[in-house]
Amino acid sequence: MSRFFSKSHAALTPYTPGEQPRNMKYIKLNTNESPFPPSPLAVRMASEAAKRLQLYPDPTLLELREALAARYGVLPDEVILANGSDEVLYFAFMAFCDDAHPAAFPDITYGFYSVFATLCRVPFREIPLREDFTVDPADYIGTGDTLFLANPNAPTGLTLSLRQIEEILRSNPDRVVVVDEAYVDFGGESAVSLIHRYDNLLVTGTFSKSRSMAGARLGFGIASSELIRDLDTLRYSTNPYNVNRMSAAAGLGVLADEAYTHKNCQTVIENRAYTAKRLAELGFLMTDSRANFLFVKHPDIAGKTVYTALKERGILVRHFDRDPIRDYNRITVGTREEMDALINTLSEIVREQT
Amino acid sequence: MSRFFSKSHAALTPYTPGEQPRNMKYIKLNTNESPFPPSPLAVRMASEAAKRLQLYPDPTLLELREALAARYGVLPDEVILANGSDEVLYFAFMAFCDDAHPAAFPDITYGFYSVFATLCRVPFREIPLREDFTVDPADYIGTGDTLFLANPNAPTGLTLSLRQIEEILRSNPDRVVVVDEAYVDFGGESAVSLIHRYDNLLVTGTFSKSRSMAGARLGFGIASSELIRDLDTLRYSTNPYNVNRMSAAAGLGVLADEAYTHKNCQTVIENRAYTAKRLAELGFLMTDSRANFLFVKHPDIAGKTVYTALKERGILVRHFDRDPIRDYNRITVGTREEMDALINTLSEIVREQT
Repeated sequence: MSRFFSKSHAALTPYTPGEQPRNMKYIKLNTNESPFPPSPLAVRMASEAAKRLQLYPDPTLLELREALAARYGVLPDEVILANGSDEVLYFAFMAFCDDAHPAAFPDITYGFYSVFATLCRVPFREIPLREDFTVDPADYIGTGDTLFLANPNAPTGLTLSLRQIEEILRSNPDRVVVVDEAYVDFGGESAVSLIHRYDNLLVTGTFSKSRSMAGARLGFGIASSELIRDLDTLRYSTNPYNVNRMSAAAGLGVLADEAYTHKNCQTVIENRAYTAKRLAELGFLMTDSRANFLFVKHPDIAGKTVYTALKERGILVRHFDRDPIRDYNRITVGTREEMDALINTLSEIVREQT
Repeated sequence: MSRFFSKSHAALTPYTPGEQPRNMKYIKLNTNESPFPPSPLAVRMASEAAKRLQLYPDPTLLELREALAARYGVLPDEVILANGSDEVLYFAFMAFCDDAHPAAFPDITYGFYSVFATLCRVPFREIPLREDFTVDPADYIGTGDTLFLANPNAPTGLTLSLRQIEEILRSNPDRVVVVDEAYVDFGGESAVSLIHRYDNLLVTGTFSKSRSMAGARLGFGIASSELIRDLDTLRYSTNPYNVNRMSAAAGLGVLADEAYTHKNCQTVIENRAYTAKRLAELGFLMTDSRANFLFVKHPDIAGKTVYTALKERGILVRHFDRDPIRDYNRITVGTREEMDALINTLSEIVREQT
C-alpha cells in the first residue's frame, strides 16, 4: 500500500480469482467456465454491435431487460443488469446492509461476500455449515440479518430446496434475502417465481456459466421493482453504463437461442454424473453437486497433492487452502473428452500416491 | 426508495447521464461521442474475441496494459484498466479520500465527482471557477485535499497548462492529485510524462472519445506502480474481471491503429474551429474549448430555449439547468455535415427568437 492509501480500507483482503493462464496448454477446470463456445447468434450480434462502439450503450438497457423478463416471467422493471452478477451483489451489500443491518452468510461459500462486506464496512457473520457441508436452514430463520445464500452453494454444489428458501424468506420479512443462483441452471430450483410473493427477495443470476459468456461480464438481479430501483440508485451512482454494447447484444443473442443453452446444460449434467461415477470408482468422495463442478476429495491423498499433481500433468482445478475444505478440490465439469483426460490422470495419481 | 434501503446512502443523488434515445432519428450532439465508427481493426479483433466468450478475461489484462504502456511511454505496472475511466475515478475516491482526507474539485466540472464523494461518504469542497469559467490554479496550491481536476475541464473545455498542473502537484506532495484527461486528445497537454517525477499524480484517460469506443466501456489510469497497486486492491475487491474480453480486444485493435485515431482527432479539431467561427458569426459566445465539444450561449436567448428548439428540430445537445451555466449548452463536435445542420438550425432559431 502506498502512503496515500486510506486507512479506512486497510483491512481489505481482495478476492483471489482462479488462475487464468495466458498460454492455453492447460485443460482448464478451475473457474467453472463452460466448455462450449457461446451461441453463434450471440457471437453474430456482438460482432454487429462492435461496429457501433462509438455510441454509449442505452443506460436503461431496456431491450435486454425485456428479453430477460420474458425469459423469467417477470416485468422489465423487476430486472437489473450488471457487469457480472458480482456487481449486483456489490450493489446489494451497499443498498441493504449497514451497521444496523449486518450481513450473514455461510462460512463456506462464494469468497466475494466477505470481501464486499469488508469493502462496504458492513459487519458480517459467517455461519458454519453442517459437517456434511449442507446449509442448515434453521440457522437462517428470523436472524434479522441481510442474508446471502448461494444456491447451489459454492464450492460444494449443494442446494437448498425452494421450500427451505421460502421459510427463510418468510421468517425475515424485514431483511433482504439474496439468493445467488449463478449455478442454478445445472440442477437447482430457481426462486425467481417467489419475487411476487416476497418483497424481501433478490435473486441474482449470470450469463457466465450456463450461457457460455464469462468473458462478456453480464449478470442480473430479479426482485420487486422497488428493490430494483434501490439497486439502480447505486448503479447510477457508480457506473450508469455498466454493461457495454457488445455484451448486451450477445445477451440478446443467447436469450434468443435457449435451445442451445438447454442442450449445453444437459450435456454438463450428463458429464457430471459420468465423472462422479468414475471418480467414485477410483475411491474419491464427493458432495452431491448440482452445479457445473464437482467437489471431491480422496481419503488417502491431500487436496493440495491432488491439485499439484494434476497441474503438473496439464490439468488445472481449484484448491482452497483452508479448513475444513483443504482436503477437497473443485473441478469444473467440461466436455466428455476433458473428463476422460481428468479421470485417466486422477487414476494415475491415485496409483502413484496410494 | 424501498423500506430496505440503507439510511447510510439516503443522501445519494445519482448521476444523470445524457439522453440516449433508442430511436436514432436525432443528430446526437449531447454525450461527446465520436462521430466516427471504431477502427476497423478494433471491430475485427472484438469480433474474434466474441468467439471465445466462454472464458473469463485475463484479470491482469497484461497484453492491453503492455500496449497502453508502450503508447504512453510508461511501464505496464504503471497502468490500470477499468470499465470506463469512471471506474478508475471511483477507485481513487475510495483509495485516496476519507474523513481525514477530503476531496476538492471545481464547482463546475464533471458531475460524477460529487456523486462518487457522496457514495463513498467522503467530505468534499467544490471550489468556484473564476467568472470566465477558468480554474484558478492558486485555489489548488497546498490545499491538503485530494484533488480532482478534469483537464480539459467539462463542460467548459478549458485547460490548465502542464506548468500549472505541476505547481499544484508540487504544492500538495502528501495528497493525490487526479488529472482526468478524458478529452486531452483534442488539444490539451497530457500530464502522463510527469508520473515519474510526482508520486502523487494519477492521470485518468478513456477510449470513449478520441478512440470511438464509448460503447465498449474502457478507461485507464496511469500513475506510479505504488498508486496503481492501491487502485488494484480496490479492483480486486469489487470486480477483478472488470474489462470484458471483447472490449480488451477492441482496445488492442485501436492502439495498433493510432493513425486512425489521430486523423479523427484532427478532423474534430478542424470541425470545432469551423463551427466556432460560424456560431460566433451568428452572435453566439463561447469558451475556448480544447475538447470535442463547444460550450456556447447566445446573449439574447436562454440556454433552455436553445436546447428545446434544437431538440424539436431533431438535434440533441446537453443543457445543465443550474447556475451559473444555465445560459449555456454543451454541443458535441460531430462530422462536417452534422455541424452544418447544427449551424443552419441555430441560424433559424436565432432568426426566430431575436
